[in-house]
Amino acid sequence: MIKKKSDFPVSAARRYLEPGPVVLISSRWQGRDNIMTLGWHTILEFEPSLWGAMISSGNHSHRMIRDSGECVVNLPTADMIDTVSRIGNCDGDNLDKFEEFGLTRTQSAEVGAPGIAQCHASFECKVYDDALVKSRSFFVFEIVKAHVTEQPAHPETLHYIGDGSFVTAGKVISRKSLFTKVR
Amino acid sequence: MIKKKSDFPVSAARRYLEPGPVVLISSRWQGRDNIMTLGWHTILEFEPSLWGAMISSGNHSHRMIRDSGECVVNLPTADMIDTVSRIGNCDGDNLDKFEEFGLTRTQSAEVGAPGIAQCHASFECKVYDDALVKSRSFFVFEIVKAHVTEQPAHPETLHYIGDGSFVTAGKVISRKSLFTKVR
Repeated sequence: MIKKKSDFPVSAARRYLEPGPVVLISSRWQGRDNIMTLGWHTILEFEPSLWGAMISSGNHSHRMIRDSGECVVNLPTADMIDTVSRIGNCDGDNLDKFEEFGLTRTQSAEVGAPGIAQCHASFECKVYDDALVKSRSFFVFEIVKAHVTEQPAHPETLHYIGDGSFVTAGKVISRKSLFTKVR
Repeated sequence: MIKKKSDFPVSAARRYLEPGPVVLISSRWQGRDNIMTLGWHTILEFEPSLWGAMISSGNHSHRMIRDSGECVVNLPTADMIDTVSRIGNCDGDNLDKFEEFGLTRTQSAEVGAPGIAQCHASFECKVYDDALVKSRSFFVFEIVKAHVTEQPAHPETLHYIGDGSFVTAGKVISRKSLFTKVR
């Protein structure tokens, strides 16, 4: 299902990425698009909005992102679990994954790589610091533009635990009263 | 509640850390212990078992971990939400957080820093690569020893979404049949 998204402040991207969901990374290089499934990532800073990801050099996406300097981080929800699993288990070298998996490209505002219309949110990223790319395949990105579906406010994201299994996002609990500096 | 833990393979630590839970980091330096709440982290490699964390230089723990080269990553569950929130909102400079929050130290096998007996799992870590510590406060650790409570198999972890709110780990879904190379 295509999800209509609205602009969202990049400095608040942690709202969706900090809980540690599996994401779909889309990239474009020399006229070809690719998508990979990724679970090894972390927020690194609010402003600039920095996000880090370990993208193994064995992935076709590693080269495309390194060479283009860009990608889009897309947030799938539990209804996409089969697509997430299948994308994580095939190679992008000879496959148009958008076509193969019935996904719809969205045009990005700040990067060449397309977003995925079926995902709950899309974060356009540019490589910000490549100091650990060669040694550890760890990219530091700046999130330059964010697009988020307004409802539901708490998407049922997927969190990979290994062995072909995921845990979904459960209930929301506030402890705001215990926070002295809420962010 | 104190949780009895068993040895667990370090290369499988992703089982608990990859889903993106909030963790409690314990450290020891010059005879003093500290604990901090942390949500900005990621698995980086299976073997060696590498884990990365952004530990802001404004935290007392940053200096203790940088100077000792060690820490323990402890996995709290939803019953500890008040402790997790309170630790995240106080300073360790003049406080024994173990005593303040009624937490019990466990002796570690490979590092000086103590574990937290009330947590579901504890991962002993040594700094493995400090190339991004100065510029981005990003530490790469090797997990050198893991201790995990055997039951429940799927702990109800806490995942921070900002604004004083957490989402808990929900239901487990397997898609193993769609995985070609299960890990």
